[in-house]
Amino acid sequence: MSLILALDFGGTKLAAATVNIGAREWLSYERRLSPANADANTDLEIMRSLIHSVLQDSKPTAIGVSFGGPVDATTGCVLLSHHVAGWENLPLKQLLEAEFGVPAYVDNDANVAALGEHHFGAGQGYDSLFYITISTGVGGGWILNHQPWRGSGGMAGEIGHIVVDPNGPVCLCGKRGCVERLASGPYMAQNARELLASDRTRGKILQNLVEDNLELLTGQLISQAAAAGDDLAQEIIQKSAWALGVGIGNVANLVNPQLFILGGSVTKAGNRWWEIVRQLARETALPEVEFQILPAALGDDAPLWGAVALTQVNGQ
Amino acid sequence: MSLILALDFGGTKLAAATVNIGAREWLSYERRLSPANADANTDLEIMRSLIHSVLQDSKPTAIGVSFGGPVDATTGCVLLSHHVAGWENLPLKQLLEAEFGVPAYVDNDANVAALGEHHFGAGQGYDSLFYITISTGVGGGWILNHQPWRGSGGMAGEIGHIVVDPNGPVCLCGKRGCVERLASGPYMAQNARELLASDRTRGKILQNLVEDNLELLTGQLISQAAAAGDDLAQEIIQKSAWALGVGIGNVANLVNPQLFILGGSVTKAGNRWWEIVRQLARETALPEVEFQILPAALGDDAPLWGAVALTQVNGQ
Repeated sequence: MSLILALDFGGTKLAAATVNIGAREWLSYERRLSPANADANTDLEIMRSLIHSVLQDSKPTAIGVSFGGPVDATTGCVLLSHHVAGWENLPLKQLLEAEFGVPAYVDNDANVAALGEHHFGAGQGYDSLFYITISTGVGGGWILNHQPWRGSGGMAGEIGHIVVDPNGPVCLCGKRGCVERLASGPYMAQNARELLASDRTRGKILQNLVEDNLELLTGQLISQAAAAGDDLAQEIIQKSAWALGVGIGNVANLVNPQLFILGGSVTKAGNRWWEIVRQLARETALPEVEFQILPAALGDDAPLWGAVALTQVNGQ
Repeated sequence: MSLILALDFGGTKLAAATVNIGAREWLSYERRLSPANADANTDLEIMRSLIHSVLQDSKPTAIGVSFGGPVDATTGCVLLSHHVAGWENLPLKQLLEAEFGVPAYVDNDANVAALGEHHFGAGQGYDSLFYITISTGVGGGWILNHQPWRGSGGMAGEIGHIVVDPNGPVCLCGKRGCVERLASGPYMAQNARELLASDRTRGKILQNLVEDNLELLTGQLISQAAAAGDDLAQEIIQKSAWALGVGIGNVANLVNPQLFILGGSVTKAGNRWWEIVRQLARETALPEVEFQILPAALGDDAPLWGAVALTQVNGQ
């Protein structure tokens, strides 16, 4: 029986699991929060203890790794982490192969999650799909012709930074009206703060949820307030869904994949958010361009299942 | 020696040529304007006479076809022509194979031109590229991993109908601020007409070029007036280049191809147009996303050379 070891370096959390090839349930599974002020070494130490715990005395035949940041998937070298220091140019594949004596495959979390959904989740049986995570950031991963498409420099999938409103608010990347600037959780919270800064007569339900402390606003609380009928929260949800829907319609026209899969915390914003995303995507795509939009099926385990798929795609 | 027959059904013109495999010059070449009020039958009759003329008594080993409209490349069946009646669901591949007894391959002009530039033009040696034609319309064709990517429904490449300005003017497709609505030749002329309708004190050079008959305005005359210093023409050129540049930057973020190739009449709008396209594409793409933008190398013969490449890709 072939045993796969799957690892998820998630930025704020770490997870390891084992599975027999062909099985759909974990043999063993461990997950830990990454400590505040973690660096690459502390994360690697914690991961080693998780690995020890899930492997016990068994030996895997391959290791698949999802990393929350840019990776050169060809060399398996991490380029950097936006959350944790010390990952710059760390040869993670090489390090794991030396330590465990089996092949290791490393890719970034969006590409890995796309692969996971394609092999084990909402994308099973589809030739081509675009997986989008809408959470702290907005990013995506491609499957074209059943294979990952990473782009010529490994940078494909950055739907978060396509411009949908050139007169919109300024994004961290310097441009105006990026999808991420309008659709991500933290930016939804920021937009609410800015609207409330000039007018406290609106958004009463939302203000009550944070007891008038606007610093406590999150995307999740905005969804909650919108569901309870808060006008300002609904406006922000609407804008988030509008931006993502236009982005998806543009992608459909450009690349014409069969399926879009949406995951990440913002996708829990409720039915109205989904309705607007679907409506705007349909209106933005040409009538002849057909596609489906489905919620991700693997939830928090998408990177780990994707890591399993990564060993199968590359190990063939 | 293997002889390839290449055909171009261009909407307003028809061309046929022959070439020996591996050669870079046509053995024979014929081109004819499609008559006004042509239908599919008259176009096919003219093409038959062109074929007869270029083949003489020789027999090709394969036929490659570029068609100016949507095609099911798998079956080689034309879906329709936007310019010429009677092409609906015409099985062009089957018809040619029955008539000439050799394999025929049919695809739409944007995909075929992308393939032509990749095999014989500006895209030689690149793994991945996006070919964009900016002319009467704006459309594109993909090469990914050295192969055409047509999309799951054959609709990939529609950069003309991605939205870059949601508050922009209304496009024929019903949306506002599509790339095509701002960047194509006929829409540039329409934009000039609308600006002049409300203010005839601007655009004096442009108005002189058409002797004040605004119906005679074309994208080409706007380029000419802009080069001569016309303020209004320069504003329209600027907006065209802005829209295309933002579109290209968005595509770079999404798919990360190595190269963009630009062809079509609007690309002759002058250095300023190219500068703005390049600048906006660079500003819109993330700093880590690298790409080049080059002019098409094959000019009017791109569809024919692409048709040759089509027989090689499919005939392998």
